[in-house]
Amino acid sequence: MNHKSGAILVLSGPSGSGKSSLLAEVINDIGECYFSISTTTRPIRKGEVNGVHYHFVDEEEFKKDIDEDQFLEYAFVHGNYYGTSIKPVKKALKEGKLVLFDIDVQGNTIVTNRLGDITTSVFISSPTLSELKKRLEARSTDAKEVIDRRVKMARKEIQRISEYDYLIVNDDLKKAAKILRIIAIAARVKVSDNEINEFIQTWEDID
Amino acid sequence: MNHKSGAILVLSGPSGSGKSSLLAEVINDIGECYFSISTTTRPIRKGEVNGVHYHFVDEEEFKKDIDEDQFLEYAFVHGNYYGTSIKPVKKALKEGKLVLFDIDVQGNTIVTNRLGDITTSVFISSPTLSELKKRLEARSTDAKEVIDRRVKMARKEIQRISEYDYLIVNDDLKKAAKILRIIAIAARVKVSDNEINEFIQTWEDID
Repeated sequence: MNHKSGAILVLSGPSGSGKSSLLAEVINDIGECYFSISTTTRPIRKGEVNGVHYHFVDEEEFKKDIDEDQFLEYAFVHGNYYGTSIKPVKKALKEGKLVLFDIDVQGNTIVTNRLGDITTSVFISSPTLSELKKRLEARSTDAKEVIDRRVKMARKEIQRISEYDYLIVNDDLKKAAKILRIIAIAARVKVSDNEINEFIQTWEDID
Repeated sequence: MNHKSGAILVLSGPSGSGKSSLLAEVINDIGECYFSISTTTRPIRKGEVNGVHYHFVDEEEFKKDIDEDQFLEYAFVHGNYYGTSIKPVKKALKEGKLVLFDIDVQGNTIVTNRLGDITTSVFISSPTLSELKKRLEARSTDAKEVIDRRVKMARKEIQRISEYDYLIVNDDLKKAAKILRIIAIAARVKVSDNEINEFIQTWEDID
């Protein structure tokens, strides 16, 4: 009964924490996944593909979906909306998949509040702030003010690590990947409150 | 930093859930462990060894240890005291070991309240009540009234499964062992609140 329905793995971490490289390293070893793609109103960046990196929509469309309660969570960050549509998540869970969320601290709070029984959350961090800055600067896709904003945001997020089930300090990609693999595989064997209630109901088969 | 200090794995489950067989099945695959041995005032059973299955003490000694705050948790169950001495647990955690607790629902509440940041809890259950009874009767070490008391207790404990991080339904030992192995390995990578606070302090290495 431990694999009937799916489970959720939340990954948070500042830009520059190496979250994406880490996920790429483990994605083929952790069973069938559905990577939840966020919807956003922020401009598409060079190299990004609509429907792969994000669903890019305009503000009008985003606000319509808010009104229709189509988001599991959404947030207004750095002047843009980001949100998670609920329908594909429910479908993936029904299919027994591990749903992966790449969301921020605010998003984690909401997902954990709504689906905490099947959610495992992981915060991924660079070993230090200076290492984070170095990585952001090396990336060279972002303007200086964008980097500054990201650093400021990272400082705030770091303060909230204790809200997560796990912390992975990404100072060595292979080591960090090994830990994430373990956490992801364990995340799958979480049993939902619904399944537990069902189990309790059927457990007493005699007087 | 994810392995600096140890972590705790709580295993609960009624007598007859197959907890001991399950643990024996995985114990050699989950790294260095310290199996916390309870102290009890209940009479020693046939086949049990003092210092292996329990530390068997008399009520006077047990109450003295209560007064001296030597227990992480203790409970009065079926007319006897059961408790967990705190010193060896602390020592094992310092040595980076995974501390295994075989305790009941009451014990789990206390351990989770006191050491929740490094604790992973697992409830192990027989698939059904009739299967539990069958196993208890087959064991033939217990008198009928003992079996009845255990069944009554199991019924109560089952109602509190949702207090646990994981439920393992032990209907197939090999399958159940596979799940427990995953959970135990993941339990080790939990990071304590202390370690997180230390990390936050040292993370900001520049202005």
